[in-house]
Amino acid sequence: MTSNSNSIKGKLYLVPAPLDFGCDTLTPLEDVLPLATLHTAAKLEHWICENAKSTRAYLKRVGEIRPLAQPLQSLLIQELPREVHKKGDHPGSAGAGFDAKPLLAAALKGFDVGLISEAGMPAIADPGSSVVRAAHDLGIAVVPLVGPISLMLALAASGLNGQNFAFVGYLPSDAALLVKRIKELEQLAMKTGQTQLFIETPYRNTSLLQVLISQLQPNTRLAISCGLTLVNSQTFSEKIYAWRQKSHTLSLSLPSVFAIG
Amino acid sequence: MTSNSNSIKGKLYLVPAPLDFGCDTLTPLEDVLPLATLHTAAKLEHWICENAKSTRAYLKRVGEIRPLAQPLQSLLIQELPREVHKKGDHPGSAGAGFDAKPLLAAALKGFDVGLISEAGMPAIADPGSSVVRAAHDLGIAVVPLVGPISLMLALAASGLNGQNFAFVGYLPSDAALLVKRIKELEQLAMKTGQTQLFIETPYRNTSLLQVLISQLQPNTRLAISCGLTLVNSQTFSEKIYAWRQKSHTLSLSLPSVFAIG
Repeated sequence: MTSNSNSIKGKLYLVPAPLDFGCDTLTPLEDVLPLATLHTAAKLEHWICENAKSTRAYLKRVGEIRPLAQPLQSLLIQELPREVHKKGDHPGSAGAGFDAKPLLAAALKGFDVGLISEAGMPAIADPGSSVVRAAHDLGIAVVPLVGPISLMLALAASGLNGQNFAFVGYLPSDAALLVKRIKELEQLAMKTGQTQLFIETPYRNTSLLQVLISQLQPNTRLAISCGLTLVNSQTFSEKIYAWRQKSHTLSLSLPSVFAIG
Repeated sequence: MTSNSNSIKGKLYLVPAPLDFGCDTLTPLEDVLPLATLHTAAKLEHWICENAKSTRAYLKRVGEIRPLAQPLQSLLIQELPREVHKKGDHPGSAGAGFDAKPLLAAALKGFDVGLISEAGMPAIADPGSSVVRAAHDLGIAVVPLVGPISLMLALAASGLNGQNFAFVGYLPSDAALLVKRIKELEQLAMKTGQTQLFIETPYRNTSLLQVLISQLQPNTRLAISCGLTLVNSQTFSEKIYAWRQKSHTLSLSLPSVFAIG
């Protein structure tokens, strides 16, 4: 979009990406992103992202639907520092001290800027919140665009309480700590009625499922969504006693979301 | 979609609605719903909803983009009982005993069924989870479709922690209980780093904001998003000491989401 000679600032658009990152089959973008999101993405010349290569791959797909305002190689794409990927940039994280303001220099000059992560919505279960806070501090308007958010698709499809819920990120990988954490989350869900959502890296999904089935109480409901928005997406939601009886063919190698309540 | 003479069941589609319910200006549907969501909605002949009148109004808008498979008056639309609206139908709510299985008779006969609420995603901050649980119990596949979810748009735009967050619904209306609950949520956010999201009925938004500004600690961040996805949407995110100094022109008569952390 155009620069302004006066002091009108650009906006920070939060641009969602499809949920097929790292998957074998790509989802048609129009199936998961509204046209307004695609049109805005096509117009932006300034980007802040986790990874420039995958941002270019995403924008190439956008350009097949809506011509980009500038050729791909002319776009100005800045990456969040690697430290932020590792340590996080949300308040309270080890990387929270990262100052994202310099990344927003273009917005101060009047250009709109896009923030994007590898999959889903930036700053939700992904880095980016440091950039959003910097925008607020600089008086830059923040505009979130509509797209797929796996946590909420999974919550709705779980049949669990959607009036009171929490997402707690990843569970511990240490076996003893994992069991302790699972029981803690189950107690919280039982006492408060708050659904507890969490995720795991795909190669650990199968072992996490086994631990959940063996450790949770028979009447606790466990829901798992795999490959949301993909053609082979599936959601199973059963009480633990039923999980122990039935056998499901789950695609746990795909990105998955777990919920208990 | 077509019925089957064999035992193949229909699916339960969770169909998101735009966030302009009750607002003066309507959002173009293509701006907030991907084409796949609109195409699926246009094909469904069986619906379960909060309110048949607003479902018909939504489907009329869908039909302007993609011709409906059946004329509006031929669609079979079932409402969730009024009791469920009042008492909720999520596990642990007063209306949790409601048996939604009879509403899914068409799916057992092979027809796909749509579940929809007044705004956003059914079963998230809205009724519908009893229908989803019934579908799982009956072996009916549940497919959540992509659309706008105000809670997550607000969370991403807040700059608060999106790796650990909770939505706790409505706060108490009684003044003393409200202050107690606000302090409890602030303590939880401070101790655990978990962002706390909540909503209020629009006519109470202004008074809730005043209480939050006066009761929260100076270094707590408070974010408010009003009218998300509407043309006049806005998000403000500041620490409380800054809220006390600045004056913002907020559109608090629009549906709003509050977040602290």
